[in-house]
Amino acid sequence: MTSLSEASSLDQRDPLARYRERFHLPEGIIYLDGNSLGALPKNVGAGLQRVVDREWGDGLIRSWAGAGWFHLPLRVGDSLAPLIGARPGEVAVGDSTSANLFKCLCAALRARPGRRVVVTEEDNFPTDNYIIEGAAGLLGAEIRYVPRGEDPRAMLDDQVATIALTHVNYRTAAMHDMAEITAAAHRAGALMIWDLSHSTGAMPIDLGAADVDFAVGCTYKYLNGGPGAPAFTYVPGRLVSTLSQPLSGWMGHKEPFAFSLHYQPADAIRRFVCGTPQILSLACLQESLTIFADVDMREVRAKSLGLTSLFMELVERECAGHGLEIVTPRMAGQRGSHVSIACANGYRLIRALADRGVLGDFRAPDLMRFGFTPLYCSYVDVFNAVRILKQVLDDASWREERYATVLEVT
Amino acid sequence: MTSLSEASSLDQRDPLARYRERFHLPEGIIYLDGNSLGALPKNVGAGLQRVVDREWGDGLIRSWAGAGWFHLPLRVGDSLAPLIGARPGEVAVGDSTSANLFKCLCAALRARPGRRVVVTEEDNFPTDNYIIEGAAGLLGAEIRYVPRGEDPRAMLDDQVATIALTHVNYRTAAMHDMAEITAAAHRAGALMIWDLSHSTGAMPIDLGAADVDFAVGCTYKYLNGGPGAPAFTYVPGRLVSTLSQPLSGWMGHKEPFAFSLHYQPADAIRRFVCGTPQILSLACLQESLTIFADVDMREVRAKSLGLTSLFMELVERECAGHGLEIVTPRMAGQRGSHVSIACANGYRLIRALADRGVLGDFRAPDLMRFGFTPLYCSYVDVFNAVRILKQVLDDASWREERYATVLEVT
Repeated sequence: MTSLSEASSLDQRDPLARYRERFHLPEGIIYLDGNSLGALPKNVGAGLQRVVDREWGDGLIRSWAGAGWFHLPLRVGDSLAPLIGARPGEVAVGDSTSANLFKCLCAALRARPGRRVVVTEEDNFPTDNYIIEGAAGLLGAEIRYVPRGEDPRAMLDDQVATIALTHVNYRTAAMHDMAEITAAAHRAGALMIWDLSHSTGAMPIDLGAADVDFAVGCTYKYLNGGPGAPAFTYVPGRLVSTLSQPLSGWMGHKEPFAFSLHYQPADAIRRFVCGTPQILSLACLQESLTIFADVDMREVRAKSLGLTSLFMELVERECAGHGLEIVTPRMAGQRGSHVSIACANGYRLIRALADRGVLGDFRAPDLMRFGFTPLYCSYVDVFNAVRILKQVLDDASWREERYATVLEVT
Repeated sequence: MTSLSEASSLDQRDPLARYRERFHLPEGIIYLDGNSLGALPKNVGAGLQRVVDREWGDGLIRSWAGAGWFHLPLRVGDSLAPLIGARPGEVAVGDSTSANLFKCLCAALRARPGRRVVVTEEDNFPTDNYIIEGAAGLLGAEIRYVPRGEDPRAMLDDQVATIALTHVNYRTAAMHDMAEITAAAHRAGALMIWDLSHSTGAMPIDLGAADVDFAVGCTYKYLNGGPGAPAFTYVPGRLVSTLSQPLSGWMGHKEPFAFSLHYQPADAIRRFVCGTPQILSLACLQESLTIFADVDMREVRAKSLGLTSLFMELVERECAGHGLEIVTPRMAGQRGSHVSIACANGYRLIRALADRGVLGDFRAPDLMRFGFTPLYCSYVDVFNAVRILKQVLDDASWREERYATVLEVT
């Protein structure tokens, strides 16, 4: 694949091509950061306006019942459930991934009294490890870190209460074998927690088939739920009623409007809901998810692999000799939907690319990340992104002094 | 005060009357539930649309820096600070009141090693007591409940690590003396936590002058931040850097973008921020708060007392003989901004009133609550609400069978 016309013909044969027009993609931008913040679905604005004007403005307090706000955490959970292989009633949406992971960790540690080890990876997403420190500190647990590049299964033994891993690595896009590791955790008597932040919406996931115990994940990446959109918590029906978690807010109570003195958890996944949900953010996510109603996730995965594979192929061919090293696995079954390239000048390159309309992002010390969201990224986007990267490298424009300044928040 | 014209002349002299037009108040509705969900400020819709279209749609990932999303939890906190007597940098906004109370409880218990008692009231808002159960369970603390109607100061001794109270009671609107109780807690060596959910925005509050250690509160009542708007956490500068809390997400890290292996809390109030904030809900609150920029909170308090006082006076005069009992304190210094009336037929009455455009709410087993938000409630609203209540009582229309059906969520 060397020409624009070849990329264009791949787009013409793309069964997902029709979804692109459902997103607002700014003129002159090739957006390769949907793995960090998904693009705006065009239906969101009107949906949110209806919630503000009709439900809040006119409905006022009556909308907790009349507009179904009270049920939104579980209703949005049910919309999301098919994307991760969950059944209705197994997913709650609200709070952040960090807070939800905290709930799951506490629940898991309590469900395995006598075992005091939590396994995680050094290379897990940092907030996951910070929250593991927070929960382990409270519950007197010890943390066992899997060194970068090693097999987490080697760290499992009869002291391990739970193992918490991120399915697709935020740095490299390397993907774990969910079913294999979950089975190994169960053989060791441990509970399995998956963070699906970097995989949900980018591939088919089947938590039920993999017999997973807990999953959390964010919805503002491949699900396009909006900046800081509320996160989800999954616990299977077979397990949930045996668990307790300490963020025991009134919305997780068996009878929230009985206003009784003591906490009694709701029967199912609602016990993982805590305080009053942030309805506007939740309603925005609900609107975003309507796009997925008729999406075939196998097609999403096929295109994700096609886009990432083409990107890596073109970078290797067109940008050789510039010190770029692709750190994302080349094997299709071993990666998610972004591609990471290590380069000593990565920060300047990402800045120079952004100035030319190609938006990726940078993770210290040297990683350039490019995310490919199958619903709105095209093969022509990939072709043009690499063309522009090649230009920036060839004419050395990334060396301009202004690209050396580190922006406060990237 | 017996006539509509007298109420109307109070409105004409009301220095806050001009704020009413800044809210969307549906035709035919007298809204007396702003203590549960504040009305929609008219500027919110356009503000939110700008955030969605320009910041998310066009700005995409760049808006974390370019639109200041990253700083929003503290920036909105700084907008809110003057309303509660906090200094800039002492308030963070995000998560729910429940989650924030959990953080404060854990921090307080850790700051008082050797003391294992948490004091709360039986009559505290239920979610506060549920969260106290959750935190106490994790930290091995014991809960001491102040019986309804008794003085919390009597429960303080050298075993008490912290006392967590709600400033204005959600049922009765009875208000604690913040400075007195805080001083008593400090004399006993305990840390003071106030939940300001039912007072913020309805009266001047001076956390600094009262030397309070922690405060949390919701922003969707008198601050009109929208359904489930994010809650706040206050910790004074003198204390915050000595504290640790276990919801240690990446947004509370000293260097969130360093992606280091271990958690290191940020220096000040940011250490009480956890995961990625729900930007749309936060931006909505930011818009709502602009209304308070030039509001004199003493005028708010004076009008709040005027409205509640008039309501109680009229109810007593006009609705005698129907078994209504006002449970809200009559002394001005002892109540917040809602009035609660106990009545065996309260549920039916609230339903019948709603059918006639008067929106209050009901709390089991027998409490009718009517909230008076000084920025948009008028004295004429009060007069008309009581007139309609009197009608419903006099013609016994509340007895209609349809008002007996209990709606699932009220």
